[in-house]
Amino acid sequence: MPKPIIGVMGPGDSATATNLENATELGRLIAKNNWNLLTGGRGLGVMDAASKGAKQAGGLVIGILPSSDKTGASEYLDVPICTGMGSARNNINVLSSDVVVAVSTGAGTTSEIMLALKAQQPLILLRPQKSLLNFLYELSYPTPAIASSPEEAIPMIAKFL
Amino acid sequence: MPKPIIGVMGPGDSATATNLENATELGRLIAKNNWNLLTGGRGLGVMDAASKGAKQAGGLVIGILPSSDKTGASEYLDVPICTGMGSARNNINVLSSDVVVAVSTGAGTTSEIMLALKAQQPLILLRPQKSLLNFLYELSYPTPAIASSPEEAIPMIAKFL
Amino acid sequence: MPKPIIGVMGPGDSATATNLENATELGRLIAKNNWNLLTGGRGLGVMDAASKGAKQAGGLVIGILPSSDKTGASEYLDVPICTGMGSARNNINVLSSDVVVAVSTGAGTTSEIMLALKAQQPLILLRPQKSLLNFLYELSYPTPAIASSPEEAIPMIAKFL
Amino acid sequence: MPKPIIGVMGPGDSATATNLENATELGRLIAKNNWNLLTGGRGLGVMDAASKGAKQAGGLVIGILPSSDKTGASEYLDVPICTGMGSARNNINVLSSDVVVAVSTGAGTTSEIMLALKAQQPLILLRPQKSLLNFLYELSYPTPAIASSPEEAIPMIAKFL
Repeated sequence: MPKPIIGVMGPGDSATATNLENATELGRLIAKNNWNLLTGGRGLGVMDAASKGAKQAGGLVIGILPSSDKTGASEYLDVPICTGMGSARNNINVLSSDVVVAVSTGAGTTSEIMLALKAQQPLILLRPQKSLLNFLYELSYPTPAIASSPEEAIPMIAKFL
Repeated sequence: MPKPIIGVMGPGDSATATNLENATELGRLIAKNNWNLLTGGRGLGVMDAASKGAKQAGGLVIGILPSSDKTGASEYLDVPICTGMGSARNNINVLSSDVVVAVSTGAGTTSEIMLALKAQQPLILLRPQKSLLNFLYELSYPTPAIASSPEEAIPMIAKFL
Repeated sequence: MPKPIIGVMGPGDSATATNLENATELGRLIAKNNWNLLTGGRGLGVMDAASKGAKQAGGLVIGILPSSDKTGASEYLDVPICTGMGSARNNINVLSSDVVVAVSTGAGTTSEIMLALKAQQPLILLRPQKSLLNFLYELSYPTPAIASSPEEAIPMIAKFL
Repeated sequence: MPKPIIGVMGPGDSATATNLENATELGRLIAKNNWNLLTGGRGLGVMDAASKGAKQAGGLVIGILPSSDKTGASEYLDVPICTGMGSARNNINVLSSDVVVAVSTGAGTTSEIMLALKAQQPLILLRPQKSLLNFLYELSYPTPAIASSPEEAIPMIAKFL
């Protein structure tokens, strides 16, 4: 059996300092738990921060890139996958992750949250804003798990595996 | 120049009677304005209702199917496109539409709203729920146009073209 | 039932004058038979020539573009589909065509011939070179139909529908 | 810098015993050279044999699956990527490989050879049949490198990196 793949989704340009800290810590903890990390692969924002955390803790980092080559990829990737299909690759991120964790919510990240709900993939939201939760409560899908910190997300991930 | 393509996005199984009425009327008006209609192609919910409205008004109906063949397609399609790529086709729906109109919000539809924001495509929400709007206001993207009826959506579409 | 979609595949830059003539005539005949034409959508080579033939004969022309917008599209398209997924869209060309006709063989076109064999789609080769046929005979797939002219391809298409 | 990814492409069901032996040996040598292996991920034919060879030699094995989940995946994968996009994933195989090696030629594999030519990816054919070569010589693309054994392919791969 391959090691579990934990997908960490989050914004690129619009990530806040707190998002980046959370992503790095989450990446670190995922590696420490001997899971593989998957991100959208780009060298910025949550994708890059989570990759850095996992890589520096000795983990394996998979990046599903929107581009057709490695231009703009995070320097922390072990396995860069070049899809050449832009945001359509968001669905691959979701389908390939045994558990999806969303750190903050840009438009791309929210599309991944929605695709995860649609595909019935295990889904954890890290410190989601209240307005997203209020919206999610009205959708006819099971409510995702909610973690208040990277540390709290880890046992939730473990439970899904 | 090809005729404008207006994408109408909306839920399948979870569509309400009001959603279906709105979708049918919107499809009808799109056809009456001599625009082509694009939907996710399936034979249920908003996709089917909008297709029916456009087809019965003499319009051309394009369906971007998630499946690799025409099984489950709406009977009102003129141009069934078989992508064989599941929900990854949502990005094609958005990129191929000159204007995207979302009727209600299932998970798939919301992924399309997000992909439209990401791709900076003209976007109209038809009678969106308050919770979605509250969430959208917090994203760092231009707020979509909001229509209170199919009739009101038409001049908004025209303005985008 | 939607009208049949006939996919005409062929090279862009490397198309010969004969390829272009054949493509235009094939497009014209497809339209005259009241079928819809599908191509890879670009404004050059066989794609453009077939689109021109069909459009000028009053047919409907569908173009499945590799790009995420309409830049570089054939001016003869009625339905430009923007996939944003590069050559991965070749599989959509094949799956969406009720019959696939290959006019000459660049690398992209040959990938479509192979994807059509794989998907067991009806396949006609127009004046294929001997070396391609010799190769195809060795594959464990049914041999495609072979047409010596656009005129000869038409009854073969009709038989597949 | 991530380790180079070497893509080994080859048929599933139609692989011969010799194909399988070559694929296993090639996978083993790729791992011994400290490169990562990428295949189409399925648990049969060349994909499975190459994965087995690399895995048993301690290498990392990436599988780009056509399916939306891990059903039918090779048991030797370390990194199963679920694309849910069928044969359209062939383009991802090609774009993600720093060097593409084709072992034998089914229809799917030949589509990958063609997509590699199109994307100008380094390409090696392992013991290709004469009819394929004769066809390739007529295409307006650089002729791929040709290896007569897995052992001979290794320095060719190294030279491309």
